[in-house]
Amino acid sequence: MNDLLPGAVVPARERTGLFASLVKTLPPESVVFADQRVLRLHPAAAKALARFEVLPMVAGEPAKSLTMVERLARKLHGVSRSATFVALGGGTIGDVIGVLAHLHKRGVRLIHVPTTLLAAVDSSIGGKGAVNVGEVKNALGVFHAPAETWLCPAFFETLSDGQLREGRLEAWKMVATLDAATFRRWSRKPPDDGALLREARGLKDAVVRTDPYERKDVRVVLNFGHTFGHVLESVSGYTLRHGDAVGLGMLCALDVGVAMGLTPRGVADAVEQALPNRPGARRELSRWASRAKVSAVSTVLAADKKGSGGALRMVLLEDLGRWRVARVEASQWQGLWRGAWSRGG
Amino acid sequence: MNDLLPGAVVPARERTGLFASLVKTLPPESVVFADQRVLRLHPAAAKALARFEVLPMVAGEPAKSLTMVERLARKLHGVSRSATFVALGGGTIGDVIGVLAHLHKRGVRLIHVPTTLLAAVDSSIGGKGAVNVGEVKNALGVFHAPAETWLCPAFFETLSDGQLREGRLEAWKMVATLDAATFRRWSRKPPDDGALLREARGLKDAVVRTDPYERKDVRVVLNFGHTFGHVLESVSGYTLRHGDAVGLGMLCALDVGVAMGLTPRGVADAVEQALPNRPGARRELSRWASRAKVSAVSTVLAADKKGSGGALRMVLLEDLGRWRVARVEASQWQGLWRGAWSRGG
Repeated sequence: MNDLLPGAVVPARERTGLFASLVKTLPPESVVFADQRVLRLHPAAAKALARFEVLPMVAGEPAKSLTMVERLARKLHGVSRSATFVALGGGTIGDVIGVLAHLHKRGVRLIHVPTTLLAAVDSSIGGKGAVNVGEVKNALGVFHAPAETWLCPAFFETLSDGQLREGRLEAWKMVATLDAATFRRWSRKPPDDGALLREARGLKDAVVRTDPYERKDVRVVLNFGHTFGHVLESVSGYTLRHGDAVGLGMLCALDVGVAMGLTPRGVADAVEQALPNRPGARRELSRWASRAKVSAVSTVLAADKKGSGGALRMVLLEDLGRWRVARVEASQWQGLWRGAWSRGG
Repeated sequence: MNDLLPGAVVPARERTGLFASLVKTLPPESVVFADQRVLRLHPAAAKALARFEVLPMVAGEPAKSLTMVERLARKLHGVSRSATFVALGGGTIGDVIGVLAHLHKRGVRLIHVPTTLLAAVDSSIGGKGAVNVGEVKNALGVFHAPAETWLCPAFFETLSDGQLREGRLEAWKMVATLDAATFRRWSRKPPDDGALLREARGLKDAVVRTDPYERKDVRVVLNFGHTFGHVLESVSGYTLRHGDAVGLGMLCALDVGVAMGLTPRGVADAVEQALPNRPGARRELSRWASRAKVSAVSTVLAADKKGSGGALRMVLLEDLGRWRVARVEASQWQGLWRGAWSRGG
């Protein structure tokens, strides 16, 4: 352990319970970076933090910037490398505080307290932090695994339907790509959010342990639905929620797979039927796809690309729980963009 | 290797030779971040880089900022995670490009080409990168070890006497703290810069391998002379060169050690006699020490502190090649600051 680089991805200690109780276990030199909306909605949580330094933040994509990292760092001049940072909020807070925790004195202890179902299911696992540079999402980032993750169900009680749907969509992504048995079980009887959270976290955690730094084409499975999800987010000017965008991006990935003969039609239909963005997902996809020309989409993809050249590398489904990375030629997705995705149905 | 976090500190491949020859071994997707002064002074080096993307930079402390990281990152949108970054310059270029290489796509391959003797002896070894935040030096940083370090003696030929002295002072710091036999040999017959470079790098490399992430109170020995070195740099408004400041900071550390009865007077004298900042070092120390009140020094130390409380933790010499970290009370250094250091002699 001592010889691991600060933030090296190791399994986080997961603790479930009341935030106010967990706060009592914090060391004195802790700094809490908190979504101010969460503090407002949860006065008991705010009160529990009274004896700590709390830096309130406004959540959202603009928080994910080096400007924010610098602004926060200026408030940390007396804070030592033995400190603990707590990221209390959703994915954007967790992402930027992950970067700050990695950089402050070359790495301090981090605790994630995801307050959205989406962050609990996804971004709080696996140690990735990132900031955006200009239009490019996550252009700069770190691996900085949390020492602990706190799951406090009370925070999820104040989430909107849209926020809950985002988390559920990411959870369904995990089971569709990674675990056919759970997918079928969930399809027969949709899980409650507690079970969904627990099972989806377990699936992501297993992937991350196998390929902590994305070197083995294993962790890449988590990008299912993200290629066109990112495009749609960008096209919408980020009015489309990240989870919803990934939900639509999964439909795109299924369509590409079917068009290439790689995803059986029955598998694509089963996943589409199961996703909690029905009804209306195809209409929503067409709403955004019809707004952007293929040339504009290509520009977004080029900046975002994981691979190289004009073609894409996408995660596609071969079956429930079975996936591969495939090379997708420009012509293959462009036809779908101009056609089915823009028209809807 | 695959499971190490990007930038984990591993021994760099060290290559000595002509820059133009080494450049031929660069992969096509390489980006060279170059001190523009070095490009101007070494047209053959600039010419050798013709087929690569070269981003010229102005060296110096202002380059070590998140603003610079962001400005450079905006020029890297098409650059993949398989790219190689080359830092061609002295310590400030190496420090900020170390941060950028660590953050870009969560870590790319880095080659250090130190163009100053100081960077070759010190900052290019051990994988530390950092930027300043406000007045606080190295407030944010990373460990990101280079894959290769290129030592090209031609770059050292255009250094000023002051730049050469900086490198030599850091090299003497290594032998005084780590290797009594080499210290004595060097004291009898000062080494040429080639031998000095080679032996000092070897000493630092051994320290870094033992304690790559500063967790074991081993790597801390490299801070000998840095506590008051940083103070003097700050007091001088950074007109005092870093290496020269550390040279004066070593005199301070020797004096503190002697005052505490921890450093034998004969050892302190031997080191002071050997350092290549004589004659005039004591006069120079007094020039800067007399400009700052103890209260101002305390402020700088508090922001910079490695430990906690009002006291300092300093590396002090017990003998040639033998050191320890000692707690130094405020009264112990304040008397010296007001007295011997400010008065000179």
